[in-house]
Amino acid sequence: MENNKVKIAIIGFGTVGSGVAKIILESRGNIAQRTGVDLELAHVVDLDLARERPVNLPAGMLHDDFDKVLADSEVSIGVELIGGTETAAVIQEKLLKAGKDVVSANKALLAEKGEEIIYKTAREQGRCVAFEASCCGGIPIIGAIQSGLRANSISAMYGIVNGTCNYILSEMIHKGKEYRIALKEAQAAGYAEADPTLDVDGTDSAHKLAILAMLAYGKKIDFDSILIEGIDQVQLADILYGKEMGYVMKLLAIAEQTDEGLSLRVQPSFINQEEPLAKVSGPFNAVSIFGDAVGHTSYYGRGAGMMPTASAVVADIIEVARGNARRIFEATPGLGRPVEAACLCPDDEITSRFYLRLSVIDQPGVFGRIADILGQNQISILACLQHESESSDNVPVVFMTHKARQGDINKALESIVRLDVVKDKPVCIHVVTPPKG
Amino acid sequence: MENNKVKIAIIGFGTVGSGVAKIILESRGNIAQRTGVDLELAHVVDLDLARERPVNLPAGMLHDDFDKVLADSEVSIGVELIGGTETAAVIQEKLLKAGKDVVSANKALLAEKGEEIIYKTAREQGRCVAFEASCCGGIPIIGAIQSGLRANSISAMYGIVNGTCNYILSEMIHKGKEYRIALKEAQAAGYAEADPTLDVDGTDSAHKLAILAMLAYGKKIDFDSILIEGIDQVQLADILYGKEMGYVMKLLAIAEQTDEGLSLRVQPSFINQEEPLAKVSGPFNAVSIFGDAVGHTSYYGRGAGMMPTASAVVADIIEVARGNARRIFEATPGLGRPVEAACLCPDDEITSRFYLRLSVIDQPGVFGRIADILGQNQISILACLQHESESSDNVPVVFMTHKARQGDINKALESIVRLDVVKDKPVCIHVVTPPKG
Repeated sequence: MENNKVKIAIIGFGTVGSGVAKIILESRGNIAQRTGVDLELAHVVDLDLARERPVNLPAGMLHDDFDKVLADSEVSIGVELIGGTETAAVIQEKLLKAGKDVVSANKALLAEKGEEIIYKTAREQGRCVAFEASCCGGIPIIGAIQSGLRANSISAMYGIVNGTCNYILSEMIHKGKEYRIALKEAQAAGYAEADPTLDVDGTDSAHKLAILAMLAYGKKIDFDSILIEGIDQVQLADILYGKEMGYVMKLLAIAEQTDEGLSLRVQPSFINQEEPLAKVSGPFNAVSIFGDAVGHTSYYGRGAGMMPTASAVVADIIEVARGNARRIFEATPGLGRPVEAACLCPDDEITSRFYLRLSVIDQPGVFGRIADILGQNQISILACLQHESESSDNVPVVFMTHKARQGDINKALESIVRLDVVKDKPVCIHVVTPPKG
Repeated sequence: MENNKVKIAIIGFGTVGSGVAKIILESRGNIAQRTGVDLELAHVVDLDLARERPVNLPAGMLHDDFDKVLADSEVSIGVELIGGTETAAVIQEKLLKAGKDVVSANKALLAEKGEEIIYKTAREQGRCVAFEASCCGGIPIIGAIQSGLRANSISAMYGIVNGTCNYILSEMIHKGKEYRIALKEAQAAGYAEADPTLDVDGTDSAHKLAILAMLAYGKKIDFDSILIEGIDQVQLADILYGKEMGYVMKLLAIAEQTDEGLSLRVQPSFINQEEPLAKVSGPFNAVSIFGDAVGHTSYYGRGAGMMPTASAVVADIIEVARGNARRIFEATPGLGRPVEAACLCPDDEITSRFYLRLSVIDQPGVFGRIADILGQNQISILACLQHESESSDNVPVVFMTHKARQGDINKALESIVRLDVVKDKPVCIHVVTPPKG
């Protein structure tokens, strides 16, 4: 069999772009030998032509004229790695309209405007978009959903999909650090950006969740309908109480198929310390997927970084070059096929176990009044924890509930905060119980 | 896009065959909606037409005439699920020669005769063989190696690929059970066969290792060259000493690229309790793969059982129907492309840390004489453990070494057993230290 030669243009010569160029330039022969695909890097486009990068390009390859890529009819794959949602959308559209397939790591663009702009344009042009690198860096999670698990109906997915948050939470859990300190250290260690907002507020995780859920459930996901909570409000005290009760806090991206519809949310959540996800520490990512046939499967690896992300980008380039990505794209609802909107579970109908922390005045009858309110709202207590306290006017009491409706929890908390013996705002954290797989 | 309709024949209506039939019959519509592939089950062939199975077939579908499958020109995919290496080889060859693609879960056949018979025939006939289900049941590990990680050179793979052994070891580790008792309970619980030989002696793990290594390294693997040790000789005492020192015993299928060649072995091995693989308990499987770009990735799930394995078989059927499996098959060295034999690392050149347990007579100077021999053979001691003992003529002493050559360890042990103060045969177990990923 002859090797299949493809010409590639990289748009965006930043961290990931450098990694992709490095792999193509250094491993071209190996990749051709293993896959039959001969990758020729033809253009690297960036506005900044001067900055030092960790890879040396052949003379003339780097330039700032995107139109040269569009005009080069031999280029069949455009790799968009500039990020952001505005210029990147224009670039992807132009590539598709110029008859080129697109490979992208741009989760924000695909999650927020994938259906309206990118996939639609690809459909109209008979091209495809591949985006393994948009979720969880080097972990081939999209390949698993799109191919390996395709015989399954997915009942639930739980993902640790943001390495920055997982690093910060791991430092809080294992070393008892306060959030602000852990964040600062994550920035110093290169695990958090100077402006970490989109990571710590959960937006980045929600972008990945939107993409994974669309593929897993074959439905259109309205990004704005995802319930998003970050780790920026997490208190060390709750992490430590949870740990004492056998639970580990993770920022989880959750998709659960319920009788009331699909529940999609990003939340700091407690998970039993024996679950595989509870053991994923530091900057690593992992996703657990539950299928009706396969049961529980889980995928683990580095969710970010130059080379792990570049690994996924190049894998996509190979599958696009083989024609496999196009076939999958064309047949997938939400990509090449029209798709209906997911029926979403109303927030009040989410059922979960809950961790509740209340600050109360230590006087007779308090416990009973709270337990009464919980009972009146069909909430049953599974465990509780109160330590001896020196003060008596602000004593933390922690309840772990059986499964309850979010709506009932909200109603109960409304009543509880009206009690004169309850101080401060109650803390309410979901305790995730994955299906038995 | 029109659905792509394919007719399928299942050969072998046992446990996995029943699962595959169940998925196709019950999820045909869902799968077509998600993938564009419409799976029509046309034949189920088995010699036993009477036995009750957990799925009801339409009248006339089950029969015992394999020639009817060969003669049915509309059948494009034959699924061989009878197992074994003799009849199964004939069936796969006949299917390929009749112009049908083959899907198989038959690890023994593919590991032992894949190159000589099956892949060669497929090549000659312009057909393909897909076998995701042959390794680790429902975990899409072959897909990960063949697509998601293709931009990487794989430096090492470590797999827990036999659920029976992992269940037995987990019971020994966590509940302190002796091997014989754990095996009996595994049989009673359905995690071990009545004749568990191929599982507990490591052969089954080696079959999977041969397949995974061939794909990961793109080299022909001579099955007989794999070093195979099972769990049937493992002693509870060593599991417990290892645990005390922070290590968990797993039966690992190992592929390591070394300067001396590729090292392939199946061995009960110690692994640091903090490694993700150490936390894989019970009947679950997991594989950790280290790539030069992606770093450490790991894949977890049920490695056996009716529905997990069927999940992988049906995933393969879908990819064959899409034409994707054929393109990958044709381009893969060792499958559709000729391949050279792997250059294997001689056993003596394997380097590893080692766990050594000696039984010694407790008298002055013993420790020093042993340490001297280790030192003379370039073996450096990292840790040691000796408990207070009531007896003095058979005291266990445990050494954990720094990295050493297997050949040096063998030479040292030869000298050590000749010491008059050393009783019994020393126990020597590899301590696996995966690359930093």
